[in-house]
Formats: sequence, structure tokens, C-alpha cells
Amino acid sequence: MITLTSDFGSPYPAAMKGVIRRHTDAELIDVAHDLPRGDPRAAAFWLRFVLPEFPPAVHCAVVDPGVGTGRDALVVRAGSHAIVAPDNGLAMPAARALAGDEAEIEAWSIAVGTPASETFHGRDVFAPAAARVRESIDEGSTDSETVADALAAMDDLSPASDPVDLVFPEPSVERDETGDVAAVDGEVLAIDRFGNVITNVPGAMVRGRDWIRVDGDLTPVAETFGAVEPGERLVTVGSHGYAECDVNDGRGDGAFDLRPGDAVRFVADNVSL
Amino acid sequence: MITLTSDFGSPYPAAMKGVIRRHTDAELIDVAHDLPRGDPRAAAFWLRFVLPEFPPAVHCAVVDPGVGTGRDALVVRAGSHAIVAPDNGLAMPAARALAGDEAEIEAWSIAVGTPASETFHGRDVFAPAAARVRESIDEGSTDSETVADALAAMDDLSPASDPVDLVFPEPSVERDETGDVAAVDGEVLAIDRFGNVITNVPGAMVRGRDWIRVDGDLTPVAETFGAVEPGERLVTVGSHGYAECDVNDGRGDGAFDLRPGDAVRFVADNVSL
Amino acid sequence: MITLTSDFGSPYPAAMKGVIRRHTDAELIDVAHDLPRGDPRAAAFWLRFVLPEFPPAVHCAVVDPGVGTGRDALVVRAGSHAIVAPDNGLAMPAARALAGDEAEIEAWSIAVGTPASETFHGRDVFAPAAARVRESIDEGSTDSETVADALAAMDDLSPASDPVDLVFPEPSVERDETGDVAAVDGEVLAIDRFGNVITNVPGAMVRGRDWIRVDGDLTPVAETFGAVEPGERLVTVGSHGYAECDVNDGRGDGAFDLRPGDAVRFVADNVSL
Repeated sequence: MITLTSDFGSPYPAAMKGVIRRHTDAELIDVAHDLPRGDPRAAAFWLRFVLPEFPPAVHCAVVDPGVGTGRDALVVRAGSHAIVAPDNGLAMPAARALAGDEAEIEAWSIAVGTPASETFHGRDVFAPAAARVRESIDEGSTDSETVADALAAMDDLSPASDPVDLVFPEPSVERDETGDVAAVDGEVLAIDRFGNVITNVPGAMVRGRDWIRVDGDLTPVAETFGAVEPGERLVTVGSHGYAECDVNDGRGDGAFDLRPGDAVRFVADNVSL
Repeated sequence: MITLTSDFGSPYPAAMKGVIRRHTDAELIDVAHDLPRGDPRAAAFWLRFVLPEFPPAVHCAVVDPGVGTGRDALVVRAGSHAIVAPDNGLAMPAARALAGDEAEIEAWSIAVGTPASETFHGRDVFAPAAARVRESIDEGSTDSETVADALAAMDDLSPASDPVDLVFPEPSVERDETGDVAAVDGEVLAIDRFGNVITNVPGAMVRGRDWIRVDGDLTPVAETFGAVEPGERLVTVGSHGYAECDVNDGRGDGAFDLRPGDAVRFVADNVSL
Repeated sequence: MITLTSDFGSPYPAAMKGVIRRHTDAELIDVAHDLPRGDPRAAAFWLRFVLPEFPPAVHCAVVDPGVGTGRDALVVRAGSHAIVAPDNGLAMPAARALAGDEAEIEAWSIAVGTPASETFHGRDVFAPAAARVRESIDEGSTDSETVADALAAMDDLSPASDPVDLVFPEPSVERDETGDVAAVDGEVLAIDRFGNVITNVPGAMVRGRDWIRVDGDLTPVAETFGAVEPGERLVTVGSHGYAECDVNDGRGDGAFDLRPGDAVRFVADNVSL
């Protein structure tokens, strides 16, 4: 199996699939091709969310604002998964989620000749590399040692000297005298297509409360959108385990005025209304 | 084969596919993931339109505004097809279209433990259930009795006591003294991405006429968009067999000011212009 | 393998896939379904760009403003590829790109009975025809003679008498006394989803320059978007080999005020700034 992720829209990913099909008949599964344009951080968030659901696979992920500038092309092994991606950190959060521990992550640099284009390395570099990686790893290999050996045996890979990393920020937590969470300074990691504002605040810090202040505004905490009226704001815990700032049947990004990278402060409030 | 339908946008359906791939290598075919958000009625319309084109398959359909509220998760068998869906009526119109008769429809309730999330049952409930159903039914089974037996043998299914139904309204027809259709009071069932307004009025009631009044306005009836000038309104019979209110190279929903659920009245007019 | 291309949006292509699955289990790969509505010229451009990446396959391509008007349905053989498409020229540029020479292109007319609908020939005509073509050609056939023989043996195909052609215009080139390119009058072929303006001017005519005038305005020529500041205009050579008028992290169509079919004039300028 090869999964495909990009910010290319259509029909560019189909060109990548054609290239792959010239090399291998591995199954092709799209993760997304409408990710925010040229934003490796958003792509890294979604890859970390989606890839751990898959059994061992080769993942080809191309969100690449540095295309044509000489940045490396990598294969990042994470346990028995392999992610083929530009060297901009994109693959790293997913790799940490896929690998048991850091020792199970290793980055290889792909020897790239002169690609046919300067602007579509998805087709000219990453798709053929993903196909070669897929062919090199026996499709049934689910243990990481076998996958590691297969990559080590590939002629066009060499150890990457200093791959770019990308680490999502940790929230900063204030506790009261009893040790309970009193406030959390977090950051917006991503906005999904519904306008839900995904923060880096772990769900455990809001779950079980009735209300919480978001940047000062008292907001209900609920397990489901349906717990508040359509158009009303709420804080909920998303399927990724983080606190989200949402609107039932509406857009949280507009209502909370939050964008990716913005700071957001949650303050506990035991108000009863 | 497993078909997938949702209002999730990307990349959420890829997480469902990853989960399914951990259980089965059944082929995955997307029906749509950009259906109107939280609108089981629109999804029910499109499922009824699309699923009957398929050979016997498992269909996983999740448009689920009640996620996390305790509504049941169902497997609806319709002949030799099985639809895995929330218990909000979503599956029922397609089930009636797929099954020879009502006796060939049966609903099973899925035993759901505590899902990993309260908001993404597509990944945590419906995808694994669809995979289990797919594994339980032998892929080559095309007769409904075999499929029924396979579902009955599944440990985590029990007969659904009172599944939610969803029935599209029938139009109300007025006839003249000769028995011909004089007027029809219908309803808008759906709007497609082109803005075509799909009503519940059977095509036979408009086909063959030159003109018809739509909410009072005289409108040409045509077999094809090209029969009127670009930007002009027309009534045509869509591929689902219903009368549509359209604009050639434009949007019918704007021109006719119609939305899903709106009433629409067609009146026969034998005018010659 | 069958590739699928249309301007249908979702969920219409899924109905085509269901129909195909009733006939054959050939792999289905989407090229695009969000192509500009009713614009065979744009579709022809993208098919010519994408299809040559694929190994021999059957391609079903439906952008069909003339649906229901009696235009022919074709199978166009191009070497060992077969394109199933309406007779509006859509398939021809890709066919020339796929075939070694014109002698390797032949067009067949599909005998079409009375389709189930007048408006969705993708489902009622082209999908079943693509499935029959796929079944007639042995999946492993990669030489064009075998493919030609398979089509010739199909009962429902007859030689197309006068298929519609579609030829992209060639730019007009002015040279200075030394024979160098002084100016090119080109045309906009397509706009992609990023707003990049793709012209018919070969990349070789701009590559290696520092600046060029686009409709009078001095514009930097660069190999990559990153060579100019975000929001700045540039001319680059796209992955299709043509000169593009783009904006780094913005839309070229707006900044250059260019639409498909517009004339665009490049003038050499050896200015140093």
C-alpha cells in the first residue's frame, strides 16, 4: 500500500499515481490533496492524526514550499512504516506517533538526479521514490527490522545528516494550590474544513468541566456538538484528543477569531449559571 | 468491496480507511465525502441515487449530527447489500431501492463499547463495524439469504427494535376533467454542486411538454441543457428520473430561489409562444 | 486499469464506478472530477498532461456540454491506450501525446441504444462502454497492435467517420536579427486551482532569462516560486513545460488579469535593475 498526501488539488496527484503504476501495482490510498497550500506544519498535524490508523505502509507526503531550492528528499522510517517526503519536518510528528520510540526513527536522503521539472517533484522525485521504496520492502513485512534492512539495501538512499525537525509546542499549565489545572496557555495547531479550531491543549485538561473561559469568554464544555444550540459556541475534545473551540452547525475559527499558530488561553471557572 | 460516504471532508475518511485496512483488504470506493454537513436527508437522497448502481457490497455511510448522543449504530441489510450507518434514517431510502421488497430489509443494532472518541464515530465505530461486516459476508455472496445468515451469525449484532425511518414526501397531483395532470405540488429534495434543483416530481409529469409554470413562471421544458441559451432557465428530467429546475451554464437554486425542503408548484400550461 | 475524468463533482462519479463494477473488477483511478464545468478544452489540456504518465490503460473522460444532443460517443485508441469520451475533441490532444505518431490514433464510434437518461451519459453510456472496452482488451496487453485488434473485434464499435478534433494553438514567435526570440504572442491554455496561468509558450523561450515583459509589465523569470517574495509576480516554467504567469503564495490569474483563451504577449528585455 502507498498512501498519498499533498496540497496539489486535482489533477496533479493523478500524474503521481500514473508514475507509481509504471513501477508497482501497490494499492493507492489518498489521505488528502486539499491541505493548506505550502504549509508543512498543517500537513504534519494531519499526517500525525491519520497515519497511525494504517497498518505498515509506504506514505508519500508532499507539501513542499521549498520545491526546486535544493532541500533534500527523504525517506523517514518509523518502525515498519516509511514516509517519503521533502526535508522540511513534515514527516516527523507522524514518525514519532508511528514509531514505538525515537530509536525506531531513521532518515535517509534520496539521491535525486536532475528532475524533469523544477516545480512538480511530487511527480518527478517523490512518486518514483515511493514506488521504489514500496518495491524494496516486501509488501507483507510488518516488523521494523525487515523494513530497516530493506531501506539500508537501497542504492539510492544514504543516511540523512541533519534532517529538519518539526515539533508541535507543548501548552503551558498553571495549577492552583490543590494541584488542579487553573489555566492553560495553548496554541492553535490546525483548523479543519468545518472551521473547528484544534488546539494543543490535551483533552484531559477540559473534560469533565461544565464551563471554561476561552480568552476570557465563558464557554460551555460539552462532549458533543448537539449539547448546545445551533450557532452556539462550545469547547469539546476532538477525535485527536485535543481541546477544540467549535460552533454547533457553524465555524469556530470565525466565532473565536483564531487562526493556526495563534495563542489561546483556557482558564478554569467553576461558575454555575 | 466497501463504499464510503460522509460529510467529513478530508482527511478524516483516510483515517477510516486506515482502520478498515487493519481488518480487511476489501476494495474501498468513495461515494462522496463533501455531502451537506449534518444533513442525513440529503445524504439519504444521494445514497438512494448511487448505491443501486453497485453490485452487492458493504456500504459505510456516516452523516451523523447525533454523534455522541447515544443514537444506535446500525447494519441495514437490503437484499444482498449491507449498509452500516447511524440510526437516523439515512440508510432507509437506499435500502428500499436496493431491496426487492420490504421483506428484504432488516436492521441490526451494533454493540458498541466505549468508542475512543465522542466525535469521530466514523473512525471509532462505523469503519471497524463495516470491516467486520465485510469479513463476515463472503465477498462473493450475491444472494440475500447468504448475506442474511452471515449477519445473523455475528456476535455483535442484535435485531434493532425500532430503527428511525426517513421517507421522502410524495408530490400531490391535481388532474383536469380528462384525467391529465393539471398541477403538482412537490418539494425540493436536494441541490447538486451545479445548483440544479432536484424535486420529488416524477419526470413523467413534465416530460413531453413544451412549457410549464414553476411557482407561476412560465419555463421551457427540455431534454437537454443545450436546448436553451446559456443563462436561461429550464425544467428537465434528471438522471434520477425527477423533474429538475435548472439554468443552462448557471445555477438553478439561485434563479428559482429554491432550497432543500422548499415547496415547489408545477402548473401545466399549453401556451404556444 | 480504468482512469476516470469528469466535471461532475460528487457523488456522480461513484454511480459510474458502481456501473463499471457490475462488469469488471479493473482498478479504478480518479484523474479529476472537479474540472471546469462544460469545458472540453480545459479537460483536454489536463488529460494531455496526466494520461502520458500512465502505463497502457483505458481512460473514461466525460466533459460533455453536448450531452443528449446526439453527438457521437467515441473510443479513441492511442497506441496501447484507449480513451472513451464524447466526440467533442476532448480526447485528441492526449491521444497525440500518448501515440507515437498519428498512424497510432484511430477513432471508433460506440453504438448507443436509448440511454436511461438524457443528462447522465457518464453513467448510462461512457461507464459501461469503458467497462466493455476494458474487458475486451486483455489487461496485460501493452502493445498497440493487440489493443487495436481487440477494439476491431468489438461488436458495438464502428469506425468514426469524422471525429471532432481539438488542437491547441501554437504561439507566434518574433526573432531579432541574430535569430534570438524577441517576442512571443501566446494564449492562456488553462488556470490551475492555485490560479497559476498556464500559457502555450514553450518553457525554452523564457528559461535562462532574468526578466521578461508580460503584456508590457517587466516580470522576473525564476525556476521556483521561492525566488520571489510572497505576493510577488513571476514567470516560471511549469511541470508541463510551458511558461506560467504566477504569484508566489497568491493567484496569477488575478494579478495578471488573464483567463483561459486570453492572448498574452511576452517580450524579451535585457534590463538589469
